[in-house]
Amino acid sequence: MTVLFRQMTICGVGLIGGSLAITARKHGLVERIVGLGRSQSNFDVALARGLIDFATRDPAEAARGADLVMLATPVMTFPETLAAMIPHLPQNAVITDVGSVKAWVVNELEPLLGPQMALVAVHPVAGKEIVGAAAAEEQLFVKRRVIVTPSPRSTPAALAQVEALWRATGANLERMTPAAHDAILARASHLPQLVASALAGSLEGEQIDGKVATEYGAGGLRDTTRIAASSAEMWRDICLTNRDAILAALKGFHGSLDKFTAAVEHGDAAELIALFERGRRMRERLK
Amino acid sequence: MTVLFRQMTICGVGLIGGSLAITARKHGLVERIVGLGRSQSNFDVALARGLIDFATRDPAEAARGADLVMLATPVMTFPETLAAMIPHLPQNAVITDVGSVKAWVVNELEPLLGPQMALVAVHPVAGKEIVGAAAAEEQLFVKRRVIVTPSPRSTPAALAQVEALWRATGANLERMTPAAHDAILARASHLPQLVASALAGSLEGEQIDGKVATEYGAGGLRDTTRIAASSAEMWRDICLTNRDAILAALKGFHGSLDKFTAAVEHGDAAELIALFERGRRMRERLK
Repeated sequence: MTVLFRQMTICGVGLIGGSLAITARKHGLVERIVGLGRSQSNFDVALARGLIDFATRDPAEAARGADLVMLATPVMTFPETLAAMIPHLPQNAVITDVGSVKAWVVNELEPLLGPQMALVAVHPVAGKEIVGAAAAEEQLFVKRRVIVTPSPRSTPAALAQVEALWRATGANLERMTPAAHDAILARASHLPQLVASALAGSLEGEQIDGKVATEYGAGGLRDTTRIAASSAEMWRDICLTNRDAILAALKGFHGSLDKFTAAVEHGDAAELIALFERGRRMRERLK
Repeated sequence: MTVLFRQMTICGVGLIGGSLAITARKHGLVERIVGLGRSQSNFDVALARGLIDFATRDPAEAARGADLVMLATPVMTFPETLAAMIPHLPQNAVITDVGSVKAWVVNELEPLLGPQMALVAVHPVAGKEIVGAAAAEEQLFVKRRVIVTPSPRSTPAALAQVEALWRATGANLERMTPAAHDAILARASHLPQLVASALAGSLEGEQIDGKVATEYGAGGLRDTTRIAASSAEMWRDICLTNRDAILAALKGFHGSLDKFTAAVEHGDAAELIALFERGRRMRERLK
């Protein structure tokens, strides 16, 4: 393959950024990879594994010579990080990200861009239970969805380059609007997280006759609350940056829950069967 | 061990009843095992595996000589099945069950008993994803919780005998009141099922810009909705027979969900962290 970028600066060399670096380097898609971050121990791992050529805590230093900036820190830090880099970036730099919300990212970042810069917002839908450069692996994105959300400042050339980079990972690329992305992920990812956390929270500390109720749960309780162990900070940020789509998804869930509650209250056997069967249909389609 | 019962009649020779039969036979705790059921193919399996000595579809025939009746069909069928057996049972027969609600079972069955009969209501908290005599296995109850809920018609002798039978399976036995059992299981098992089914139901058929939202879910969506595939009939019966405890558990969940919804709506970062952390604490205690 041909070189896509002379220098990719990854802000946050963790699981996602680090895994992409492995592919970029293996296929010769970028000539030089710079890591911007805070943790010396993570830098040490990233340098030792050859994920990056150079590490810095200074946004200005990280910006110099970067024709691609990959934002891979928590979403709400993007604007401040990018604002600090902008004055030091090449005039035609391409900005991209791996955040799990997209309309907020586009709305916050586009006004910061220089006139010849481009933004290509991307969400690789890949697991994030483990973090840090040590967790990076070449196969992470194989056959996973990578959603690209073109926006007014996505030039055709920048889109093509960023998509070529992601295509090399073996991911399945797909384009949609930032709003469609956020509405879909609000339902497929953000709502399940809120429901799992609300369920876990409602059971926390519950005792009956001095017995801890959750100790009597089996596989069902375990499965249903598994993701409640996720990072509170990450999910706070997603709730703050995808508010409207999450509220719409929550509204649908409230409606579904209210139907179940009414059916239990009224002992409505036929309605209970209909409601449980509806859930079964969704689940069976999920495979 | 000594013989506990001359004849155990199992009504519903499935995973639970069949697995208990293996232990009872291996340890010589019962002399003869009779199966009451409907499906000839399940009888064939149960007979071929030696789980039962004799199979019948006739409650009267199943009742004759049974000093232990084990009800292991769906809970709501217990009263009709037992009522059909009562006139044909020995005067001092012991009735037990494996249903997943207990106050309803006690309230429905005790009035049916002859004056010298006893009832010992039991809930073995063991997986039920697979069904039928073919799934029965000796190790099913090892280290699993078996909850015994003594009631006015549980005589000390009957309690001791039924507990001895269960203890032989390697389960961890525990006694509590039927009401405590139902309140605990409403939280640890019935609420997670309703929440998972309500979540799956709210997402069923959801499309955004012609894309099926659930196809974009990852492990979180899969885990959180896994038990929505469970039997609608089984969960209808649990909802109908444990109504009040389930409504109380649902009330707690509604409260927790409303807090999340308000925090998202108001963009309350500190409250979001507090709520997600509360869920994390519950989940981390669950191990």
